[in-house]
Amino acid sequence: MIYEDYAIFTPGPVKMSEEILKIGAKQTPYFRNSEFSQVTFACENGLLEMVNAPEGSKVIFLTASGTAAMESAVMNLLNKSDNALVVNGGGFGSRFVDICATHAIPHTDFKVSDTDLSDIESLAPNETYTALVVNAHETSVGHLYNLNAMGEYANKNDMLYIVDAISMLVTDPLDMQQSNIDVVIAGSQKGLALPPGLSMVILSPKAINKLQDINSLYFNFKDYLSNGERGQSPYTPAVTIMLQLNARLEQIKQRGGVTQSIANAKDVASYFRKSIKALPLKEYTPYMPNAMTTLAPTDGKSAMDIVNDLEKNYKVMVCPNGGAERDVVFRVSHMGEMTKEYTDILINALHDYYGVARAE
Amino acid sequence: MIYEDYAIFTPGPVKMSEEILKIGAKQTPYFRNSEFSQVTFACENGLLEMVNAPEGSKVIFLTASGTAAMESAVMNLLNKSDNALVVNGGGFGSRFVDICATHAIPHTDFKVSDTDLSDIESLAPNETYTALVVNAHETSVGHLYNLNAMGEYANKNDMLYIVDAISMLVTDPLDMQQSNIDVVIAGSQKGLALPPGLSMVILSPKAINKLQDINSLYFNFKDYLSNGERGQSPYTPAVTIMLQLNARLEQIKQRGGVTQSIANAKDVASYFRKSIKALPLKEYTPYMPNAMTTLAPTDGKSAMDIVNDLEKNYKVMVCPNGGAERDVVFRVSHMGEMTKEYTDILINALHDYYGVARAE
Repeated sequence: MIYEDYAIFTPGPVKMSEEILKIGAKQTPYFRNSEFSQVTFACENGLLEMVNAPEGSKVIFLTASGTAAMESAVMNLLNKSDNALVVNGGGFGSRFVDICATHAIPHTDFKVSDTDLSDIESLAPNETYTALVVNAHETSVGHLYNLNAMGEYANKNDMLYIVDAISMLVTDPLDMQQSNIDVVIAGSQKGLALPPGLSMVILSPKAINKLQDINSLYFNFKDYLSNGERGQSPYTPAVTIMLQLNARLEQIKQRGGVTQSIANAKDVASYFRKSIKALPLKEYTPYMPNAMTTLAPTDGKSAMDIVNDLEKNYKVMVCPNGGAERDVVFRVSHMGEMTKEYTDILINALHDYYGVARAE
Repeated sequence: MIYEDYAIFTPGPVKMSEEILKIGAKQTPYFRNSEFSQVTFACENGLLEMVNAPEGSKVIFLTASGTAAMESAVMNLLNKSDNALVVNGGGFGSRFVDICATHAIPHTDFKVSDTDLSDIESLAPNETYTALVVNAHETSVGHLYNLNAMGEYANKNDMLYIVDAISMLVTDPLDMQQSNIDVVIAGSQKGLALPPGLSMVILSPKAINKLQDINSLYFNFKDYLSNGERGQSPYTPAVTIMLQLNARLEQIKQRGGVTQSIANAKDVASYFRKSIKALPLKEYTPYMPNAMTTLAPTDGKSAMDIVNDLEKNYKVMVCPNGGAERDVVFRVSHMGEMTKEYTDILINALHDYYGVARAE
């Protein structure tokens, strides 16, 4: 088994809890029955509660990774008569732009940097936009946008507000009602700390009303909704991950609810950021989520070399960036089963790596 | 955990081996590195060998269930200038028809029954067909078609031959070269006996040459092929299931190769069919695969009642049919970690249920 004895600080897969891992070793049960329907309903209700979804909201469970949820949300909700404002602050925003282009959805590639979009009103004075599409946390750079400010803007301009929350759910606050969010996209292998392979699209009643007939079987949301009424899915679900999701939602509840999980992530992230202050590493953006810390070397070292050295010499996995940012920045996840003690493994490795004694 | 102490004879999920299950309890490792690329390559090579794929064939690994593989194969390989002959002998053939209709692929809904298509030449004299699309094993009724006869027909008429082998790989023979198959579709949770959530499309060089540009990110095979060159995928793979697939392919090899696995399935299926001869149950079709036995009650009992009674009174899961066949037939899988001893649980339950002593 690869990397079994490594400490993992990558933003997906993330460190999982023993309780959830154990379920992965169970025989996958047959699922076309009411017992599994109850599991689906419990997952749906748990997720709706977690994001404070408006009454009448529904969850689409896709056996697929997050990009499929992003793409299918666009396919089911937008069409040629739309004009989507797509926030593009990095690799995942750029993916939403690609998705709109691929499906011939009229859109504006809204390139942003150095802002959390609290000022979206002045940056993108709306004239004809019908939808706002955004990755709440642009994972490629560790940049969190202001969901409330964007929600006010979308609401005022009667735009459908689609939020990819894949890499900030459970670690950073998201409230569909407070932020007027119509669609939330989630994935299994980030804050939910499950194996990859399940993605979810949470639809408000407003979004459900907008669903259109599309030329797709696998991504046909109307079909998922009609099967979902009896807790089933049109095609074989990711049964094992659904069982793990059910247990994980219960675990989050037992631990004090999602606010407690968010507080814990915030606490761990702050601890990490404070603990490495003496090192030649700079926070890459002032808008970092609790989910992740992005660090830029200030001593001329290559970020990619640091990632490789941590892996090779300390058995610690952090996440490199690609392309132009390859040498500029690397990423440290605080998602999943994170504690200060576990984070100490990375903090100590970094201090040792730089030959700097850790402050008491 | 639901159904933990049940014996499972459903055609997906199927009974998994302890060795494979254990991997499900491991922390999912980070995968954007050469270690995971090696896993992908090993999976690809193992699958290509298993189906005797022609030199230059490639595997697309989709994080999705089987229908996505069926749909994406059609999307990437067929277009408006095609005329696809779609074998429709039940629910899964009908799904291929739906897929072609949804994507506006000209097609003929070739309804068949009471034949394994050894006589396809006379049943469908070809004039303009460009592709033959078939579920090798129509799982809804347990009907196995003659891959060689169809392959000769497809080859003679220069048709692209697309075979969904989801529910017969590992238990029934499939040889791409011998049967002139261009595309093989596979799924994780049938004969491969892994959790659901991974599907595979094996492309021959002829199929690779036919790949077209399509309006999809998630199902864009060209993109998968180009990432596949370095053992990676464009979007997050089903990492855990890939690790399990790697181990499973090794396990099949250790046990004597796929021919041994097929022989075992055949042995178990024959044993089961012979052992229930005294019961008022009739084999539903003469063309059954090793993968599955479909049984029709001959004493007027409802098949669905039998399924429910086995579950409730004997903790044994077999598979009901839906729609018109609800009361007519039920299905018993021999896929996965099956032995005669394990199958005895079902055989004994059925004898007890009917109050018939089992022949020694």
